[in-house]
Amino acid sequence: MQNTPIQIGLAGFGTVGTGLAQILLHNTEWIGKRLGRGLHIKTVLVQDLNKTRSFIPAPDTRFVDSIDALVDDPDLDIVVELIGGLDKAYEIIAGSLNSGKSVVTANKALLAEKGPELFSLAARKHLGLYYEASVGGGIPIVQTLKESLAGNRIKSLMAILNGTSNYMLSEMSQKQIDYSQALTRAQEKGYAEADPTLDVEGWDAAHKLCVLIRLAYGRDYPLNMLPVQGINTVSVYDIGKAQQFGYVLKLIALVKEQSGSLQAGVFPALVNQDHMLSKVDGPFNAVVLEGNAVGPIMLYGQGAGGLPTGSAVLADIMALVNQNAAYNNTGFLENDLRTANILQPELTVSKHFLRITVQDRPGVLAVLARIMGDQNISIAQLNQTQEAAGQFVPIVLLTHAAQLQQIQSAIQEIDSLEFVQSPTVHYRIL
Amino acid sequence: MQNTPIQIGLAGFGTVGTGLAQILLHNTEWIGKRLGRGLHIKTVLVQDLNKTRSFIPAPDTRFVDSIDALVDDPDLDIVVELIGGLDKAYEIIAGSLNSGKSVVTANKALLAEKGPELFSLAARKHLGLYYEASVGGGIPIVQTLKESLAGNRIKSLMAILNGTSNYMLSEMSQKQIDYSQALTRAQEKGYAEADPTLDVEGWDAAHKLCVLIRLAYGRDYPLNMLPVQGINTVSVYDIGKAQQFGYVLKLIALVKEQSGSLQAGVFPALVNQDHMLSKVDGPFNAVVLEGNAVGPIMLYGQGAGGLPTGSAVLADIMALVNQNAAYNNTGFLENDLRTANILQPELTVSKHFLRITVQDRPGVLAVLARIMGDQNISIAQLNQTQEAAGQFVPIVLLTHAAQLQQIQSAIQEIDSLEFVQSPTVHYRIL
Repeated sequence: MQNTPIQIGLAGFGTVGTGLAQILLHNTEWIGKRLGRGLHIKTVLVQDLNKTRSFIPAPDTRFVDSIDALVDDPDLDIVVELIGGLDKAYEIIAGSLNSGKSVVTANKALLAEKGPELFSLAARKHLGLYYEASVGGGIPIVQTLKESLAGNRIKSLMAILNGTSNYMLSEMSQKQIDYSQALTRAQEKGYAEADPTLDVEGWDAAHKLCVLIRLAYGRDYPLNMLPVQGINTVSVYDIGKAQQFGYVLKLIALVKEQSGSLQAGVFPALVNQDHMLSKVDGPFNAVVLEGNAVGPIMLYGQGAGGLPTGSAVLADIMALVNQNAAYNNTGFLENDLRTANILQPELTVSKHFLRITVQDRPGVLAVLARIMGDQNISIAQLNQTQEAAGQFVPIVLLTHAAQLQQIQSAIQEIDSLEFVQSPTVHYRIL
Repeated sequence: MQNTPIQIGLAGFGTVGTGLAQILLHNTEWIGKRLGRGLHIKTVLVQDLNKTRSFIPAPDTRFVDSIDALVDDPDLDIVVELIGGLDKAYEIIAGSLNSGKSVVTANKALLAEKGPELFSLAARKHLGLYYEASVGGGIPIVQTLKESLAGNRIKSLMAILNGTSNYMLSEMSQKQIDYSQALTRAQEKGYAEADPTLDVEGWDAAHKLCVLIRLAYGRDYPLNMLPVQGINTVSVYDIGKAQQFGYVLKLIALVKEQSGSLQAGVFPALVNQDHMLSKVDGPFNAVVLEGNAVGPIMLYGQGAGGLPTGSAVLADIMALVNQNAAYNNTGFLENDLRTANILQPELTVSKHFLRITVQDRPGVLAVLARIMGDQNISIAQLNQTQEAAGQFVPIVLLTHAAQLQQIQSAIQEIDSLEFVQSPTVHYRIL
């Protein structure tokens, strides 16, 4: 029955679910030219059956409020999980795989937490578990790592994965507004949720980074071992200081292979204004990869939104239909991903930006210079300005490459000095 | 015999062939983790068997100089065509398909000329004909159009596809050197060949654009109907003028869908300095796509070189092995690509840059303004400077959106005026 439509069960009918249904409606004929079969959303799982809906996927789409109505329906070929969160989403994905259905999901949080278990289940069942939409909206980064760069060792991956944070940093940088104003604007524009914690504290980017690390290295980097820092403590003042030195402050998700170990983390960092990532403004996402064959490449696009993310979900559905049991979920043959060798974050080497706030009196610079020297940290640039009238002055130091633990020791000693007025601000420079 | 190595026949052992062999050697173990089978270059077709080679793919690789030794060898699973050019490459690809072997090629010229015929043959034979390496070096643009954006209607595609031209334009722009100096540097760096015609006259980009148009629209845009203009007439003077108005001059390959017809071409154009494509410097390539679901996305990377292009060839080989007869060559089910509806190039609407060189005397501007007005062309910006001492002055006009045929008529009239000193220089603005 090659030409019967593929029956799809949809869990969740929010922004992405609606986006997917709209694309299916508008591009029906187009999809037919590529697939030879229709895609039909038979069932949609929602929380509230009584909610009025201005748009429904198809005249005969059935809305249900029980997980079993998806999982146990033998007519469904593919289940698309778009409800997010952990427990219910897990129940839907594991239940669908156990009952013989391939799954498409956009759920980075669940994949970060339970990915290895779910991929192992999919492999045992010989089913597809696809997740292009979980990272970077419509940017084809999962496909690129899984297939297009499959022959490459990935030396490093550096990415802007959270559109909310990137929008806020762009606004702060371009309009000289502070963090709370930027957050309000992001919420007004629909880029930030009422509770922005996952975005601004770096967790959303961290979930996505865990997904990408597995694809790039075939190893699991447990979320709870990943150093994660968000943008919630970033000041417009330091953004301006970074600009003076030719840098743009970005929330960066980074992984690098270093002698067989992985160095990874999510953190705000200074990016040189000549680097392509520094040009990524507003709610956009971008991933810069360095492969040992391909060299540097960048993928750039909208990291969120119903249509871009729906586009990625649709690509996965079409791939599942086309690949017809030759599923490639993780890009690796091993079903049980081993945990990565992890480089202690303190041993990470990079350049650093420090802003030290001191009393304006003689001898201060000599003390700071002595502390840096004791830690073997070499200073590349230094800027001291008399900001307003007053006795406190900010000293901005840019260092040459140094280990994070040396910087941390230096900061600890600096912040205990009696002439230092507030905790030293510190960012890595990429 | 799942675990026997895949036997590969290689036609051509230049930069890309050597790059591929080096990647296979360095990443053997890595590729095994993803594929479960080794990749073995059994045979290499070369022109001169007596040439000394410092590197060979494997100890038992056999070098041959007859096409039949590849095409007729029943042990070969995949033939990789990397000799370029038309006739011999055609013989190798068609011969391999006819004898039951899937093919990987980097040959954009042949695909542009004979693609429909070869894809049709591959479909009849139920074999793979993959060509990621034919466009954009290691950038996964073929895969992205064929699969990741398969559910999207592509509204437009705007790309920098020729690294040689882009390197030369970057050098002219950044170092104020002229075209011939830039060409010499490109040749010294190995970015340009001794005969640079294909690159600098736009044909290489045109071949690649034909390949991308098929992937994006499922239609054939015959190469001989494509308007093609290269960078060989670009002057450093006009690059500087463009910069004064906030634009960067780039060799652009463009296709847009407009009410069911395709507008396409390769031409030097002014790109706004805020646009991501304007940041693509040196020998890099980039493709900016606008899909009706995904919105704008950009892919960026090295457009040439042995290792990047070898990376793309390897991705195709691995995909052929993994997909195991579920081959997707064109992204569409139809085997015989129909010719696209083509928008007459003269009807293309865009903004325009004109540099008119006139004698410095009263009334000149009034005449020019009258001619533009007669053609319904509205002037957005105008700049007249007294360059050196002398009686000839350049007038630079930036227009609002106008049809190409209006601009062409205006230029024809302008260039026939007796006070106009040299042919008017004209570029489109994107």
